[in-house]
Amino acid sequence: MNAKPATRLYVAPALGAGVSIRLEAAPAHYLNHVLRLAPGDAVALFNGRDGEWLGRIEGFGKGWGAVTIVEQRRAQGVAPDLWLVFAPIKRARIDFLAEKATELGVSDLYPVQTQRTAVGRVNLDRLHANAVEAAEQTERLTVPALHEPQDLAALLARWPADRRLLLCDESGAAAPIGDVLRAAAAARWGVLVGPEGGFAETELDALRKLPFVCAVSLGPRVLRADTAALAALAVLQALVGDWREPRRR
Amino acid sequence: MNAKPATRLYVAPALGAGVSIRLEAAPAHYLNHVLRLAPGDAVALFNGRDGEWLGRIEGFGKGWGAVTIVEQRRAQGVAPDLWLVFAPIKRARIDFLAEKATELGVSDLYPVQTQRTAVGRVNLDRLHANAVEAAEQTERLTVPALHEPQDLAALLARWPADRRLLLCDESGAAAPIGDVLRAAAAARWGVLVGPEGGFAETELDALRKLPFVCAVSLGPRVLRADTAALAALAVLQALVGDWREPRRR
Repeated sequence: MNAKPATRLYVAPALGAGVSIRLEAAPAHYLNHVLRLAPGDAVALFNGRDGEWLGRIEGFGKGWGAVTIVEQRRAQGVAPDLWLVFAPIKRARIDFLAEKATELGVSDLYPVQTQRTAVGRVNLDRLHANAVEAAEQTERLTVPALHEPQDLAALLARWPADRRLLLCDESGAAAPIGDVLRAAAAARWGVLVGPEGGFAETELDALRKLPFVCAVSLGPRVLRADTAALAALAVLQALVGDWREPRRR
Repeated sequence: MNAKPATRLYVAPALGAGVSIRLEAAPAHYLNHVLRLAPGDAVALFNGRDGEWLGRIEGFGKGWGAVTIVEQRRAQGVAPDLWLVFAPIKRARIDFLAEKATELGVSDLYPVQTQRTAVGRVNLDRLHANAVEAAEQTERLTVPALHEPQDLAALLARWPADRRLLLCDESGAAAPIGDVLRAAAAARWGVLVGPEGGFAETELDALRKLPFVCAVSLGPRVLRADTAALAALAVLQALVGDWREPRRR
């Protein structure tokens, strides 16, 4: 048995010592035919609730695999609490957004329709798969929750009073993100980015009036929507988020 | 004539009122057949030196186009001064890195070989094309300078004494990027990210001893190399870079 896990897998079932997990066709194929693992080889598993566990491959069959859980490697710990609210964008960029948001510690992904949102349909399965892969590869113990698309106004109407919303405001009128977040107190946060065409002026006016909204500028250049989202997440994590904690080992 | 430019083009020749610019086959095809522009339509042009100019399409031929420069729209102004030093990574991720680095204000791209760099060849033409496209679409007036690949040690041996180097240190030993940059004085900066496999321990030791190197941690999760680069650039721009300036119009 190879002691160091060859990969990390996100699975649905509860994890505990001695439990046997049945793998679906896709992860079984990946372990068997891509990584060429054999019975006895080690993999790490997590499900977003029970921490990370060491598992040992029992065997593979046609369209399935089985893993026996050996022992816990990491406790679940505190998960990130950071929402990303975004207007759907084109395919390669939305894949990228889901991946990077996961790496940067987003806990909840909220696709929303804004006035100028050009992309109507969101492939939630695909977004979820991107988030899972990013979580597997970057040692997260959770996968961001992916919420059903809704109108931005509907989400704002139910926005929790104790969570601030960092609005990426491309109008040039907002204060620089660094200045705003240097001075920010501890809080729960969300980040809101508009579609490729930006927010409509009426949307921006309405957003700025909401008590929980904090509008910020991301500098002198125009950023694409995906770039704006990841840049705002990085600055937020660095200044008021969990990047002040050391790397988990 | 359509007064608002349909697109922005990066071109090589000097720009000035009354000058006629001959377009190469690729941009001519793009204007003629993708954007379906016609003689008399407006485009914006920049070359990294002379600011941005309004041009009017004269006509298209087989494999060429011609534009007459009308008037200046924006002065050249101060260009960003921020270097990104990176180990080459796989194709989609390096494309993305060049694009996002351009949006985030990088002035110079330095591909370097490190001990664990797995990707040998760098397609400089492709990287340059990605940077040009990002500059065209995000209102930059310059395209980052793309330097020939070299050994990291060779670049460090010639590193300018007046430029600090922000080392994205995934070992967990460095201080959080937010804490370090909150306290940083004004300086010229570069950002250094390692390859997918990370820096070797001996490389990290040597890097940390250099007087201009400033090692930082990017939080508790493992970030991919491209994510680390963009995140570090965003935080740097927000705290000590040009994001404190308003959006240019």
